[in-house]
Amino acid sequence: MEIIIAEEAGFCFGVKRALELIERLHEKGQNTQVFGQLIHNQSVLNDLAQKGIKTITTFDELKPDHTLFIRTHGIPKETEENIKNRGIAYVDATCPFVKKIHHIVEKIDQGNTRIVIVGDKNHPEIIAAKSYTADAIVVNSRTEAQAIPQGKPLAVVAQTTLNTGLFKEIVSVLLDKAEKIEIHNTICNATRVRQEAIRKLAPQVDFVVVVGGRNSSNTRKLYEIALEKNENTYFIEKSEDLNNQEFIEKIKHFQTVGLTAGASTPPGELDKIKEYFKKLKIDNIARR
Amino acid sequence: MEIIIAEEAGFCFGVKRALELIERLHEKGQNTQVFGQLIHNQSVLNDLAQKGIKTITTFDELKPDHTLFIRTHGIPKETEENIKNRGIAYVDATCPFVKKIHHIVEKIDQGNTRIVIVGDKNHPEIIAAKSYTADAIVVNSRTEAQAIPQGKPLAVVAQTTLNTGLFKEIVSVLLDKAEKIEIHNTICNATRVRQEAIRKLAPQVDFVVVVGGRNSSNTRKLYEIALEKNENTYFIEKSEDLNNQEFIEKIKHFQTVGLTAGASTPPGELDKIKEYFKKLKIDNIARR
Repeated sequence: MEIIIAEEAGFCFGVKRALELIERLHEKGQNTQVFGQLIHNQSVLNDLAQKGIKTITTFDELKPDHTLFIRTHGIPKETEENIKNRGIAYVDATCPFVKKIHHIVEKIDQGNTRIVIVGDKNHPEIIAAKSYTADAIVVNSRTEAQAIPQGKPLAVVAQTTLNTGLFKEIVSVLLDKAEKIEIHNTICNATRVRQEAIRKLAPQVDFVVVVGGRNSSNTRKLYEIALEKNENTYFIEKSEDLNNQEFIEKIKHFQTVGLTAGASTPPGELDKIKEYFKKLKIDNIARR
Repeated sequence: MEIIIAEEAGFCFGVKRALELIERLHEKGQNTQVFGQLIHNQSVLNDLAQKGIKTITTFDELKPDHTLFIRTHGIPKETEENIKNRGIAYVDATCPFVKKIHHIVEKIDQGNTRIVIVGDKNHPEIIAAKSYTADAIVVNSRTEAQAIPQGKPLAVVAQTTLNTGLFKEIVSVLLDKAEKIEIHNTICNATRVRQEAIRKLAPQVDFVVVVGGRNSSNTRKLYEIALEKNENTYFIEKSEDLNNQEFIEKIKHFQTVGLTAGASTPPGELDKIKEYFKKLKIDNIARR
């Protein structure tokens, strides 16, 4: 089996930075708790737990001698104010590309402009971004964009992990909604490059494996893009998921696999998958 | 033959206004010369000529006792300054929607922003609009847009008569070129409504006739849109063009015709075409 890894895959800048920051706290001997899952990857979370770094979901769980760690997705403005008012010591690992969206929407004069955030309204990144506006419309589909009333000038930002194709489609709809539109293409470069890489790779291989957390937004988009280009696309969370008879049955005639991973997938995971396919005893060439 | 006229067709606001302004000058007994063809319609130009209103292409042709008339397309900033400096009496019938583009591009801070004008670089409207910028890139296709270098924020305006579909396509390309894009959808409402109307009508009829000047930009776009939806689409300049054996041979089996006209086509022309088809003796129903 020939294994081709997409030119760009796995950990992004923001995730690497957050892991380095939390590692540094640990090395300094500071007890740390993370507000929400640091990244959507169970093995990384397990590693952290072994170091005593645990996830909390409410402030009440925060131990008095612990430092609060804010993950890459960012937190709503009110939550940050709350933390400050309570005098809680914290380290903010919000991805700088996510933070930039807060700055952009905060500066827009909402008296004259309607803010449109393109992304998943239930994703923590978007909940946080929206908190920096007095009011914003969140849309995640062509249909939702079509429902925006005509008139007021628009200012548009995007979830950092948005599918670039969907962003373009939605902008195309918005062009009919206002005479003036200020577009901030805040899809982060890692997302763009990764999506471009799998868009290119998927049609060139027999099947595709996308690795990442089930609830990782950017991984899901890689999966969708790959699936569009190659119907034999599989979404797995970890290398162990491949060890599955039904899956092996399906891929046994294939000779090439394309591999990509979401921004929260550690490099070790990709190595394990590579190993798995190398060892997989499928006499596929003989069968062709 | 059933004749269906597109919901919106013919003279637009700017053209009607210009014709009213020139008519008023004529009624007041002012001798007038027009700088460039007033509209792309020969019969209207002939009517004007009969009233003694002629087209000039250089200032040297302007008679001392004549008023200069500026047509809807507008003129370059330098030309207007030249007119003012020479003390030439003039009436400016530049379409207000065209003038708006001059105001928009003039206000953009070009130190930080690259101006992109979407339209035909040889059309007088675009030549005039560009004169209000220190520097602007004019693009009229996806390929031309792709050649724009990445980086600087962009500000985008469109020719008032642009095909809305092409505008969307080009914006989609530009989204990859800069993180911030300020889009002014300056395609005029008449253009949008007309294009929408023929886009709707063309697939519902057996054949389409588009009326307008060969060098009328907005008519050409109506033709392109109709042709996309109905391969039996004909571009004519005047009702007389229909009186053509080859054309009659082609349409003799058809029962319904859709009709539209560019912004410079007078209502009388549409009436003449209607009459023509009514009188056309084609026993098409019997043949089916």
